Amino acid sequence: MSLRLLESLATTEALADVFSDAAVLASMLRFEVALARAEARVGIIPTPAADVIAGVTLDVFDPAAIARGARASGTITIPFVEALTAKVRAADPAAATFVHWGATSQDVSDTALVLCLVRALGILTADHNRLAGALRRLSEGHAGTLMLARTLLQPAPPITFGLKVAGWFGAVSRSEGAMASAARDACVLQFGGASGTLAALGSQGLTVASELARQLELPLPDAPWHAHRDRLGSLVAACGVYTGTLGKIARDVSLLMQYEVAEAAEPGGPSSTMPHKRNPAGCAIALAAATRVPGLVSAFLSGMPQEHERGVGGWQAEAATVASVVQTTGAALAAMAGVVERLSVDPERMRENIAATHGLVFAERAMMLLAPALGREAAGRLIAAAVDAAARGGESFVAALTANAEVVSTLTADDLSSLGTPEVYLGVAEQFRRRLIGDERE
Amino acid sequence: MSLRLLESLATTEALADVFSDAAVLASMLRFEVALARAEARVGIIPTPAADVIAGVTLDVFDPAAIARGARASGTITIPFVEALTAKVRAADPAAATFVHWGATSQDVSDTALVLCLVRALGILTADHNRLAGALRRLSEGHAGTLMLARTLLQPAPPITFGLKVAGWFGAVSRSEGAMASAARDACVLQFGGASGTLAALGSQGLTVASELARQLELPLPDAPWHAHRDRLGSLVAACGVYTGTLGKIARDVSLLMQYEVAEAAEPGGPSSTMPHKRNPAGCAIALAAATRVPGLVSAFLSGMPQEHERGVGGWQAEAATVASVVQTTGAALAAMAGVVERLSVDPERMRENIAATHGLVFAERAMMLLAPALGREAAGRLIAAAVDAAARGGESFVAALTANAEVVSTLTADDLSSLGTPEVYLGVAEQFRRRLIGDERE
Amino acid sequence: MSLRLLESLATTEALADVFSDAAVLASMLRFEVALARAEARVGIIPTPAADVIAGVTLDVFDPAAIARGARASGTITIPFVEALTAKVRAADPAAATFVHWGATSQDVSDTALVLCLVRALGILTADHNRLAGALRRLSEGHAGTLMLARTLLQPAPPITFGLKVAGWFGAVSRSEGAMASAARDACVLQFGGASGTLAALGSQGLTVASELARQLELPLPDAPWHAHRDRLGSLVAACGVYTGTLGKIARDVSLLMQYEVAEAAEPGGPSSTMPHKRNPAGCAIALAAATRVPGLVSAFLSGMPQEHERGVGGWQAEAATVASVVQTTGAALAAMAGVVERLSVDPERMRENIAATHGLVFAERAMMLLAPALGREAAGRLIAAAVDAAARGGESFVAALTANAEVVSTLTADDLSSLGTPEVYLGVAEQFRRRLIGDERE
Amino acid sequence: MSLRLLESLATTEALADVFSDAAVLASMLRFEVALARAEARVGIIPTPAADVIAGVTLDVFDPAAIARGARASGTITIPFVEALTAKVRAADPAAATFVHWGATSQDVSDTALVLCLVRALGILTADHNRLAGALRRLSEGHAGTLMLARTLLQPAPPITFGLKVAGWFGAVSRSEGAMASAARDACVLQFGGASGTLAALGSQGLTVASELARQLELPLPDAPWHAHRDRLGSLVAACGVYTGTLGKIARDVSLLMQYEVAEAAEPGGPSSTMPHKRNPAGCAIALAAATRVPGLVSAFLSGMPQEHERGVGGWQAEAATVASVVQTTGAALAAMAGVVERLSVDPERMRENIAATHGLVFAERAMMLLAPALGREAAGRLIAAAVDAAARGGESFVAALTANAEVVSTLTADDLSSLGTPEVYLGVAEQFRRRLIGDERE
Repeated sequence: MSLRLLESLATTEALADVFSDAAVLASMLRFEVALARAEARVGIIPTPAADVIAGVTLDVFDPAAIARGARASGTITIPFVEALTAKVRAADPAAATFVHWGATSQDVSDTALVLCLVRALGILTADHNRLAGALRRLSEGHAGTLMLARTLLQPAPPITFGLKVAGWFGAVSRSEGAMASAARDACVLQFGGASGTLAALGSQGLTVASELARQLELPLPDAPWHAHRDRLGSLVAACGVYTGTLGKIARDVSLLMQYEVAEAAEPGGPSSTMPHKRNPAGCAIALAAATRVPGLVSAFLSGMPQEHERGVGGWQAEAATVASVVQTTGAALAAMAGVVERLSVDPERMRENIAATHGLVFAERAMMLLAPALGREAAGRLIAAAVDAAARGGESFVAALTANAEVVSTLTADDLSSLGTPEVYLGVAEQFRRRLIGDERE
Repeated sequence: MSLRLLESLATTEALADVFSDAAVLASMLRFEVALARAEARVGIIPTPAADVIAGVTLDVFDPAAIARGARASGTITIPFVEALTAKVRAADPAAATFVHWGATSQDVSDTALVLCLVRALGILTADHNRLAGALRRLSEGHAGTLMLARTLLQPAPPITFGLKVAGWFGAVSRSEGAMASAARDACVLQFGGASGTLAALGSQGLTVASELARQLELPLPDAPWHAHRDRLGSLVAACGVYTGTLGKIARDVSLLMQYEVAEAAEPGGPSSTMPHKRNPAGCAIALAAATRVPGLVSAFLSGMPQEHERGVGGWQAEAATVASVVQTTGAALAAMAGVVERLSVDPERMRENIAATHGLVFAERAMMLLAPALGREAAGRLIAAAVDAAARGGESFVAALTANAEVVSTLTADDLSSLGTPEVYLGVAEQFRRRLIGDERE
Repeated sequence: MSLRLLESLATTEALADVFSDAAVLASMLRFEVALARAEARVGIIPTPAADVIAGVTLDVFDPAAIARGARASGTITIPFVEALTAKVRAADPAAATFVHWGATSQDVSDTALVLCLVRALGILTADHNRLAGALRRLSEGHAGTLMLARTLLQPAPPITFGLKVAGWFGAVSRSEGAMASAARDACVLQFGGASGTLAALGSQGLTVASELARQLELPLPDAPWHAHRDRLGSLVAACGVYTGTLGKIARDVSLLMQYEVAEAAEPGGPSSTMPHKRNPAGCAIALAAATRVPGLVSAFLSGMPQEHERGVGGWQAEAATVASVVQTTGAALAAMAGVVERLSVDPERMRENIAATHGLVFAERAMMLLAPALGREAAGRLIAAAVDAAARGGESFVAALTANAEVVSTLTADDLSSLGTPEVYLGVAEQFRRRLIGDERE
Repeated sequence: MSLRLLESLATTEALADVFSDAAVLASMLRFEVALARAEARVGIIPTPAADVIAGVTLDVFDPAAIARGARASGTITIPFVEALTAKVRAADPAAATFVHWGATSQDVSDTALVLCLVRALGILTADHNRLAGALRRLSEGHAGTLMLARTLLQPAPPITFGLKVAGWFGAVSRSEGAMASAARDACVLQFGGASGTLAALGSQGLTVASELARQLELPLPDAPWHAHRDRLGSLVAACGVYTGTLGKIARDVSLLMQYEVAEAAEPGGPSSTMPHKRNPAGCAIALAAATRVPGLVSAFLSGMPQEHERGVGGWQAEAATVASVVQTTGAALAAMAGVVERLSVDPERMRENIAATHGLVFAERAMMLLAPALGREAAGRLIAAAVDAAARGGESFVAALTANAEVVSTLTADDLSSLGTPEVYLGVAEQFRRRLIGDERE
């Protein structure tokens, strides 16, 4: 297992595997094999040498030794290539000459990271699709479920739960769109040789590069990007935005799940000591991700000013950061897909919580009705008196307000009777909901 | 002047004006006037009231009082609307009722911020165009200028200065593309009323919103985004990536400008004490931006999990951060446009610095030439001996190597004579350069 | 006024003044005057020259011109010294020679920043004392006020509000202690001249430095710290920790202030549209600070690897960051001092909220009582059944549990009768409270 | 081996072990055993039960299963305690009741983290001592080695290499002092039970807590700190400051190691393609750490506003962050200890680099000598002319300047002859060096 206990909330098993030593070694080997084959095809190295290289199996590499070597040389590629060369030499000394031919360390480690990213992003996309589907269904199912809006954690005029969920859906869809777009740009071949000119391949650099890209099923960028990390930076940043969006949903759910609110709940996890308790464990994972990833984004961005043709420090800081960002984003995605798919919603409690405000959340509506006739100041005085009465308890805001003769003479019978009816004060909530969900476009 | 001394390197005069109190107040007033006109046009408020509101001038607002009020109420909108209402009331008590009709504080402050961003991004685009043009010209002019590549700050086989600059151009172009795309998504109207349903406008919410968007020349998004900050987050992050790219160029220039390297120099600034000195003042501004902005990006992203329909804390942290990010990015852009436009380049010194390595940077080429014939190990021993000889001084690497009989018998006369000739070891540098600059596509 | 609208929640008027252009210019001038006097006293410059320098008044400086000059030269000191020199020359050409004698730009700007910090930290300390005093009084006054604990936002066995507040007090006290200690280390003279050796002063460098430090009432550090920013970094980081602590208190208060919880409330601010509403405006300022400052801390720390004797980029990024961190911390402190001093607490509602859990929060206590006799598994089954019964509504957990014969025969009469009595399940809450408040030590 | 390839530059083998699954499980088990023993001693649980618990061995735990369980429950403690309880039950059903008696999940995981930190900080301290010792020796050995100062990467009047290294020593010493102090505060027992009152232990909570602390050799804090993370935050931040200091040294060394500067070099690592090359691999590790850690500090700080008695999100984000920060700091420390211990210094090249400025770095000295007699403006004109002459090549600045009759008549013979002698323009460099190294105090 590649997942570590201290990071168990910051990844998933599937993603931990994608960035495991075995997967990294496999990606590096895949690069070297594809390079040898591409060069053999172009006639730069002998085909038999490429065949020997292609015959090396993963089990010959000792991750511990390579990690140790990485600290001495500043990159995992050097000890890896040494081990690969030794293995090839044992099989065929002549072939050993052509291992890693014309490539530089960073070609291998960057492309290996990209190959891991391609796999990881496939997992994220699948979880996104689960989440988006669940959100859409939840929104459709609760298009007519009324609840309090809450601004700065204080009750405000009602919305529908369907609109709230559609807002989540819209943000999730935009965030994934940006992430997928950044991933397409970032997941490209790295291949430039020592100085980024492929000089060791003479005039055939682009031919080999194209063939290598084809073999690895990666796009060929316009040029190597050893010291230009903007594409990776955009991907990392897009993960940061998506994680923020997931954290927003998690915050909302965890607040709705408070015992005193109790409008929605994720299945959650148990407590080690309190038999009665269900904890918002899924939300905790997503909120932890939203706490953790922004700093990692910052770490990546602050390493971007890399020196000349290969940086000293900025580049070396990236691998651990990129792997953490993608895994933590994926952990949040998987958690929230689970939370939303299994969310229990209590429309009755939502109603009760509206009612429990004693009509106070309709004070705005009263203002809109009374002010044109009475002026904002006079209307304000009437409303403030009714708010006070309701806050003191006893009667509701609406009752207190409509006890006033001036109010009665100002409002229509319809307005009077519906002043505290949430359904008539939803504005264009349903239109916004449909626009967010995308029904409008059909 | 809106620029402050302690932030003088983190903005420009033009950008400081964009986010000045005067500009913010003007944007807020513009929102309220456009809202009144839109509502009058739809028939929701009386046209004369809208006219009175539209007649208010900026000079009636006291920024100090509004800032003070903001601390008490948590937003600059509330004291602003109070001041506006008082002014309107003084002119026409009936009109005062209809100030800010149906809007919420965040509608005003978010849209005002967006209006400032639209202006700021126009400035950034103009500076980007200057920078990109200067980079393209510089790259074209130095397509044949040879220099050392440097990896981990150590010399590596040669590149051209044209390729180096083309790499900068490519990164700058991609970064601006991403920033502009994020800006188009982010610069949209905010208008949702108290709970994001435009309930106070009954069924006419979308009609008013469309008209308001039209008046402010902003796109109308699918729904309000009071607590969904992903679009702004993507813009802020894109600024972070662009700043990182600018920092990379600045790092390169500042390193090339070292007295011991002296291959390129910006005009720079003087020293307060050292009469002989020119400091890389433009690069310092860009590197400072690349140091400063990543943390601001992190600050924005970590505020994204905002509570329910309007956040408490995350939202309130944004305005200062967004304004800083955009200004600091713009400061770096303006500085680097100036640096690149006026960069002095010393191709002769570049040549001398290649020569000063005594041919060591051609050791890779020697390996590529010798290893196929001699095997990598045998070739490695010959090369290491020549490297040692050159490192001890006296003769050059190429002379030491070609003094060896085995080398002479292995290499062709051409290879022998050109082993230390940088021009023949550039690989596909020029092809990469053209692909980056975009000449290839024509 | 120095406070800007977009930053109105991220500073206070007093702190904005401390970092205003006027204050920065005054600090720079104070340095130059003290330097001239110190050098005159040591006999390095003529006393009349020092007198002329000391006679320059602040009004001769144009902040806009200096800010503009700073962008060209990379520091505000160079245009400042030019302006100062011009003014001195106008008064006495001979004196002009001795302006800024032997100092470097960074000596002036760093010391000016330190002088601003000294003033700012005085303001922070005063607000801390207000806050700490208010917390202590609040804790003492509510030593016996019972309320629910809440873990992961779910109800847990009771605590006292006094203990909760004492926890805040403890964290605030530790955080301020660390900040004050870091401030003492950081607020020291910067004076090293061009290369940090005071070479221009010959052998008298330390004598002048001591006298300068004395005049400015700043400690003299062991050596200049032009490129060693650890002391400032520790201060910035300590502000980050303190802000996090303030954010924790603000989060708690904002959650307690929810309509559905209603156990405590800050006076708060009004809404622009909702007449009934009080927003947690003070908590919003502190939570915004806790969102914003960590990224600023990161920005500072990532600029620490500064080149050789004066950095290019890292150093230039600091001033804006340090000023923001301290002001934002101070804004949070002032806000929370206000929140705590005027916090309204509702012990009755706290009681009701305990009661509203129908005894579920005593399930742990039931386990502790039953498990030793029945074993954890058997006890767990009994408790789970009672929890289910209570969750279904109708009877309380305690009633459901004590309806079971096995429970009745296992527990003592005392335990039975007090199972749902919060007072008997407080453990050592009061002892912890006293230890935190410091009463224990007396 | 616990070190992972993608993190191989961000930790060391020893530190990876400290935070490995095995070490985490061992620490958790150590807590539970110590708790059982403490409670048995106080008479709260039966001694035989404690004995059975103490008999459980580490090999019974399956880290993969526990990590999986952690994702479901939000903490590694719950699946750990379940596994432990199952094991104890198998040995003695009665004892199983008393596993984890009165503790909460966070008591276990926080204390386990603290126990890991204690071990990790021991490793860091040892590496710090190596580094500090090497720096002190290096500084003493080069007290008289002259070199250029460099400000904004441009040459400035000379310093000694001994002073430069003493500056590093001072920063390292201060940074370690702050880190060690924060570690002492942070490494304390966590023990509070479900709500932080130790209610399940009745009136004996503090007695058990004291005994538990004694058994674990950890200080007992005044109260549990489940939601008050300032102590950990201060430790994490101190690591950030120390890493910044290490990054500063690494930046300097990597710049000195440039081929064009060549004043000092670390042994470095090889290149995968360039036989001639030594890369600053140790500096790269430290600079990568200084790039990476600030964002992690930010991640920790932004999670500090934790909800009520146990947070949802902020807390869960910490473990991975703290482990990364400490390991990355330790990786930088180990790398720089190696770099400094084996640094090769080239005093001759340092001299040559001073000489290569053609005396330009003495322009300041010339100003200090001429200005008092001629006035700053006249002196400035003479110096500028000589600077220009030297910059055009041919003669040196000093020769150009002293060719001027006015200069000759103004300066003493001594000053004239020593104008370009670096030794006489060192100011109080040696005094500062001694103050930094601490010799002064003796």
